[in-house]
Amino acid sequence: MIRIVLVEPHYPANIGSVARLMKNFGVRDLYIVNPKTDPFSSESRKYAMHGLDILLSARVAASLDEAIEGSSLVVATTGNTTEKSSLRTPSYLHEVSEFLSKYYSSPDTISLVFGREPSGLTNEEISKADITLTILTHHEYTSLNLSHAVGIVLYELFVKWKEKETLYSYTPTNVSFLHVKKLLKEAVYKSSMREKEDVYRMMNAILVRGVRTERELKAFIGVLSKLIGGTNKTGPEKE
Amino acid sequence: MIRIVLVEPHYPANIGSVARLMKNFGVRDLYIVNPKTDPFSSESRKYAMHGLDILLSARVAASLDEAIEGSSLVVATTGNTTEKSSLRTPSYLHEVSEFLSKYYSSPDTISLVFGREPSGLTNEEISKADITLTILTHHEYTSLNLSHAVGIVLYELFVKWKEKETLYSYTPTNVSFLHVKKLLKEAVYKSSMREKEDVYRMMNAILVRGVRTERELKAFIGVLSKLIGGTNKTGPEKE
Repeated sequence: MIRIVLVEPHYPANIGSVARLMKNFGVRDLYIVNPKTDPFSSESRKYAMHGLDILLSARVAASLDEAIEGSSLVVATTGNTTEKSSLRTPSYLHEVSEFLSKYYSSPDTISLVFGREPSGLTNEEISKADITLTILTHHEYTSLNLSHAVGIVLYELFVKWKEKETLYSYTPTNVSFLHVKKLLKEAVYKSSMREKEDVYRMMNAILVRGVRTERELKAFIGVLSKLIGGTNKTGPEKE
Repeated sequence: MIRIVLVEPHYPANIGSVARLMKNFGVRDLYIVNPKTDPFSSESRKYAMHGLDILLSARVAASLDEAIEGSSLVVATTGNTTEKSSLRTPSYLHEVSEFLSKYYSSPDTISLVFGREPSGLTNEEISKADITLTILTHHEYTSLNLSHAVGIVLYELFVKWKEKETLYSYTPTNVSFLHVKKLLKEAVYKSSMREKEDVYRMMNAILVRGVRTERELKAFIGVLSKLIGGTNKTGPEKE
């Protein structure tokens, strides 16, 4: 289970947007530590949109310790910095997201902790975490808005989780795979390419990775059949 | 080069946030088509933060055509839907991001087009694009806020670009994408398929998702060119 913990957020637009993003990425557990604005204000509700239920069930905590209680893993988020402390030399999100994403379908709780808009988390707060992470940005301007940072973290974890669940959804139901294979081999045979087996395997790989719907597969087959058919009218190709 | 195109944005907070996010991910080229609010208002500037220079150098265009002029690739973004048209059966961002990310270091321009907050892009607007993409979300609530969608797309492309810089060697230097585009269009034109524009977009999506190395791309191009060439010898096709 994934828990989002916002420490002392200042702006209703961010709090509401975080609730919306949690709904977008299937996460429900929101803690707000010592908010600097009413998290349930009309402004905040407006930004929550269809994530309003998540906003309204958010729990307000008096301290970070209270908010992360019961978590089996605590992740602190920070901006990029040049400080040398290991607290401040975080992992990049994309390096650890595959690992973290497994909490999507785990009964254990992971707390993702985000700091206040102007200044982030304190060193003391970061020291309570098992992992510190940051989002890779351009070095010219590394400071992301709070809700955008939450959105990117949740997106990255959600995609990694889904990718693992269903590596590929290519299941050609009505169009037989053998037909595609035969057509591809015929196309490759009719070309003047050398290393035909290799070329066939590469084209097959492109299709396996690339085709997502039966309609796409039929479009591809249609074009290829027609091109082969057209060539056929000229009789067998000289190789 | 990456260009962000916002079509008829309604809210200053979104316009300003997009400028900030562009600065965060090293993208500078912003077009705003027929904005429904003053894009340079004080509200908008407040949200831009250190991306103010990008906001102030944004160009306001009267039409989408004007905003995407000179782009070698146009990408439309849409929410998830169940409509059957290929316009509305997009590729997922994470499936095509590796391909799209190479525009970070290319002199060619890719236009990433985002629709109006309440309703997205129209079918006519989407039909101007070579690729349609969507962000994978939880099925319960698929509608992302505009600026969060822009942030996630830019993050994903930026990380894939940086990863490739350090990890992968796939940079199709000799094979120009424009050549592939032309070849695909020719192949589709020569087929007797109905809805040719639709078929072209589907084949393009298969390639963008499926091709992983330059050698694969060359194999595909080789076979297709030969088949088209072979057809040519029979003279113009009857349609």
